Formats: sequence, structure tokens, C-alpha cells
Amino acid sequence: MPRPLRLAPDGWSVEILDQTCLPFSEEWRRITSMAEMVEAIRTMRVRGAPLIGVAGAYALCLALRDDDSDQAIAMASDAIVAARPTAVNLAWAVRMVGQAAASAAPGTRATVACQAAASLVEAEVAACRAIGEHGLGVLRECHGRAPDRPVQVMTHCNAGWLATLEHGTALAPVYLACEEGIPVHVWVSETRPRSQGWLTAWELSRSGVPHTVIADSAAGHLLQRGEVDVVVVGTDRTTRHGDVCNKIGTVLKALAAREAGVPFYVAAPSSSIDWQVGDGRLIPIEERSPDEVTWVEGRGLGGERVPVRMAPEGTTAVNPAFDVTPAGLVTGLITERGICPASEDGLLALFPEHRP
Amino acid sequence: MPRPLRLAPDGWSVEILDQTCLPFSEEWRRITSMAEMVEAIRTMRVRGAPLIGVAGAYALCLALRDDDSDQAIAMASDAIVAARPTAVNLAWAVRMVGQAAASAAPGTRATVACQAAASLVEAEVAACRAIGEHGLGVLRECHGRAPDRPVQVMTHCNAGWLATLEHGTALAPVYLACEEGIPVHVWVSETRPRSQGWLTAWELSRSGVPHTVIADSAAGHLLQRGEVDVVVVGTDRTTRHGDVCNKIGTVLKALAAREAGVPFYVAAPSSSIDWQVGDGRLIPIEERSPDEVTWVEGRGLGGERVPVRMAPEGTTAVNPAFDVTPAGLVTGLITERGICPASEDGLLALFPEHRP
Repeated sequence: MPRPLRLAPDGWSVEILDQTCLPFSEEWRRITSMAEMVEAIRTMRVRGAPLIGVAGAYALCLALRDDDSDQAIAMASDAIVAARPTAVNLAWAVRMVGQAAASAAPGTRATVACQAAASLVEAEVAACRAIGEHGLGVLRECHGRAPDRPVQVMTHCNAGWLATLEHGTALAPVYLACEEGIPVHVWVSETRPRSQGWLTAWELSRSGVPHTVIADSAAGHLLQRGEVDVVVVGTDRTTRHGDVCNKIGTVLKALAAREAGVPFYVAAPSSSIDWQVGDGRLIPIEERSPDEVTWVEGRGLGGERVPVRMAPEGTTAVNPAFDVTPAGLVTGLITERGICPASEDGLLALFPEHRP
Repeated sequence: MPRPLRLAPDGWSVEILDQTCLPFSEEWRRITSMAEMVEAIRTMRVRGAPLIGVAGAYALCLALRDDDSDQAIAMASDAIVAARPTAVNLAWAVRMVGQAAASAAPGTRATVACQAAASLVEAEVAACRAIGEHGLGVLRECHGRAPDRPVQVMTHCNAGWLATLEHGTALAPVYLACEEGIPVHVWVSETRPRSQGWLTAWELSRSGVPHTVIADSAAGHLLQRGEVDVVVVGTDRTTRHGDVCNKIGTVLKALAAREAGVPFYVAAPSSSIDWQVGDGRLIPIEERSPDEVTWVEGRGLGGERVPVRMAPEGTTAVNPAFDVTPAGLVTGLITERGICPASEDGLLALFPEHRP
């Protein structure tokens, strides 16, 4: 599977697939400083909770090339984590790499940090693959119940390989099902205002996975009409109690799934679990610019980028980027260690090292 | 209050406010034939269940100027009703005007039809005003519970005066509350793919009603966080049992409102009630062009209309235009005769003439 972030051939700078150019053009961008990576995270050139964790880790590596003092580690870490407040992976990855660096001797810290970042990458790749294997069981069951037609999966936003390193989280079971010859069709929610649904459509196209894009508002109708076998989404932060903070609009799909009797799974690598928070309502919700609602960027007839205004100047909008789906609406969390109920007991059974 | 459709000074042609030019420019268009009006209905230059009823009635009037035979009435009626399948007002209004014309002597039928259409307009105006007065009671109660801040109303799509004749349906209580000095703030859902939320924002701006636009996906989050006192939407077809077929996305808001304990009202003029249908699942749901999802039309930096593509050619989308909110999710139907439970008994208590 492809990766949307990689070390450059020089061995120290980082290349990212610029997601603000997708789904129209595949443009790689070389990142040579912490500031450039922070900008890329903030403007969503790289996005997706696991991926911004890795991007944040490499941002710290880049910072340490210039100054590897304890103070520099602390300041750089703060600056990187502030780029986006909701996904816990970012803070977690930066802390992990920062601690590894701080424990090494000055002069070697940048190298140690890069080793830690590389380990993180390999761990995320393995976690995505494992999530895919556990989630595959769910799709196999759906297929068993209706073997004559494709398994109908609904997802929201993008939790595929673009959001992670290989396989993705929510899309990992889909890719593995396709490898196994299980026919799958994916309902892709547009995900206004940033339209990450088009990234998911692009990703699925590249792998030949049949899919259909819908307006976010159409999810309830499709669920009501029996057009969906299972909903699988990603998560930007999962609490100790199993509440799930994910892209704005997720909770509406969870409510509609419950109403329709359709299982609602969340693909949650352990890097997305915030063991410090129990109640999802305590998670800070990123407020992004209202311009993301009042402007849309698409492509003109000649393929050029064109921003268009949806309303006259002065129209007020707000733009919360995430919402919280209470654990009670989640059928199960698909982690790299298996599927568990969305509850503290469920999570601790798989991750006993986090028992108090 | 303004009206988005009016007889031209010539006394027979019709002028419509072209809603495909809003919210950027206010352009009136003169309609001189049935074919032009059918095109205007189909392409949503006029839209909103009550308004397309009136537009359809005038389309028939225009047709009868050329040929007022029984056969012409039947053929024209069929053509007009086929323009949009879901809203029941269209079929109802065309049938009413057609029957009035058919009962008159040939040669006088176009005139009789115009009189019937004019009566229909006055009835819709009165119904909207009455819905506003009944719904005002709901907003007064909200205001009484929290007099120190604006009443927080959430709506979806556009059910204001642009969708009707004066006042609107869902927005009528908002306008009357403002007249009475009750502070109101409206959360306006963008309503992809056609973005009628921007029409609502434009309408509210013109009347100085504070409002904020949100992506459709943000509704659940705002309801969860206690930011909404009441949800009020319109309806394109209300069944005898109280099921409500309205703009795609409505049922998601109804589910989120129930979860949050927020009342969910539907402003339903009797012209939107389909007494022939009990189960909302039997209502035909209009499927519109996928291009409405894959393309967005906005305005460029110079104010010119610019269509932009959201995804490369070949991306598949589907575009159901309505969904059905089951009666059980509806707190009450606000009709021109008062507010009733969303049930057959509730409706028949207000409209006893429809008892079997």
C-alpha cells in the first residue's frame, strides 16, 4: 500500500503527498523545517489522526537538527502540538519522540528522534494492518449473510491510507476484504466543509474499490432504506470510556445507524486513545475558519484551482471540525489488538497496561 | 412580506424571483408559457413545496391560454406535475385549478383558472401567516424559559418566504417573534447539495434576523452542546399518519434533536398533507442529477457565476433529494389550524373533513 509521507532520499527531509491538491493532482512536497511541517499540518496538506502524529514526530526531528537542547525540545513540541488541538495522536507522538530524544546525549538527539519516528511509522503500519484483519471479520460476516451482493459499507471523512501509513484504519478492512475477493461497495460521505470524502473516493478508485459519493445529508436516508450493512469510521481521539471524537457529522451517522439497526464500528488504533480522558465532552473541539464553509475550492473547466464564494461577504458561519459520538452508539472499537466494546472495561481487557 | 412570484403588470404572464441567482443577485424573470414555468420548477428557479404548487397552478393557466380543451387540461396537468415528483402541493394545486377550469365553459376556462390560482395564492399567504402565529407560541415559551438570551432556532433547507408566499412556513414563527420583539438567532444548515441554506441566510439578512450558517454535519454537535432550543423545518409532503418527507438531511436533525431532548417541529400547511398516503416510506423520493454533488456553483472573485468540479470526471455520486422523518420523531405539526401531534388522530382533529 502507498504511504502519504516518506523520508526523502537525503535521509533527513520529509516528502508529503499534498492532500490539498487531491483528488485532482498528486503533488509531493519536500518539507525541510519544523515550520513547514506545522504549516502542512495546520492547513491539512497532511491530515488524519495517525498521519499527523507521524508528521508531528518528523517535525520535531527537523527542529532538533538546529537545536537539540531540552528547552528546544519543549518549545518545538508545544508549537507542533498546537497546530491542531483535537487528535490525540499528535500530542502523543510528539511526546514519545521528544522523550526518546531527551534521554539521549546532546549531539545525538536528532538521530535518536528520527529512529523513534521511524519506529512510530512501523508501529502505525502494523496497527493499520491488524485493524484491517480484525475488521475483516465483520465484513466477512456481512458477506455471509448476503453473499449474492457486495457488502455495503458506509464511511465518513477519510480514514484510509491517506490518513495513516498504509491500509488506513476504517478502510483497512475494506482493502483486505477486496484482497480476499469479498465484493464491497463503499458509500462515501462528502464530508463538508473540507470534502475529505473526495479523498476517500480517490483512494478507493486507485485500488479499484467500487464506491459512490453522497451528500452528508443523505446518510440517514440510505440507512433507513436498508442500503447499508455496516458503518465504519475512524477516530481522532477515543476516550478511556469509549467515547469517540471524529470528524464533524460522525454522531449523526451513529444515530441513524442505531435507528436503522445497522452496526456502527470505529477503527481506533491505540495511538488514538486518550487514557487521560473519560468523558468525550471534555475533548477540545477544534474550531476552524468560517471561510471553509463560506468558500468552496474546486477545479475550473480547464482543471485550474478555483475558489468560489457560496454567499455574499458578511454572512456568518461557524465551523466546528469534530463531534463526539458517545460510547453507547458504538457497536465496537476495532483496535490493533482486536475488537472490543466501546467501554472502559472493553478497552482495558485489550490494553491491560492501562489499568489503574 | 415579499413574494417570490407575482402576476406581471400585463395581468397574465408571471414574474418569478430566480432563486438560482440568489444569494448573490436578485433577478426577476418573466414567464410566458407553461414550458418556461415547468423548466423553472424543474431547475429550481422556483422551489419550496408551497411555491411550486402556486407556480404549477400558473403554469396551467398559461397552458390554457393556447388550448382550453379537456384534453389540453389533462395533458398540461400531467406535464406540470411530472416536473418534480415529491412535493404533494404541486399535484394538489394543479388538480384544483384544473378542476375549476374544467367546470367552466370553454373560452372562459383560462380566466377561471387564473381566478382559482389567485385564490390559491391568498390561501397560501393566509396559511403561512396562521402557521407563524401558532408557531410563535412555541418560540414565546422558549423565550420565557431563558429570557436573557436569544431563542436558538435550528432550521434546514429553506422554508421561508422564498419557498412560499410571504412569511414562509418554518420561518414564519421566527419573523413574527422578531416583530414582537423576541430575540431570535437561527442556525442555518447549508443543505448540500443545492445549498438552500444560503437562501435562508439571505432571507434572514434582509429582515435583520441574526443567524449563523453551519455545514449540515454540524447539526448534531450543536444540538448535543445545548446550543439549540427548538428545531423547525418545512415539509414537502406530510402523510395522513404524520410522517414528514422533507429535504434530504431532515431525518438526521430529527434524530439528533430527539437524542438531545430538543423539540422538533414541522411547519406543515394543509396543502402539503397527502391524505392518500399513510406510510411515509411509500412517498416517491426524487433522485436528482449526481452533478449537483460533483459540481458546486459559487461566485468568483469578480462576482461572476463559476461552476467548479469537486472530483475528477468519472466519480460516481447519487443524489436523493428528500428523506422521510417518521412521525415518532416529530414533536408537533404546525398547521394553519393549530399545532397537533404528528399522527392521524392529531391531523384529523384539526381537519375533520378528511375523516373516512
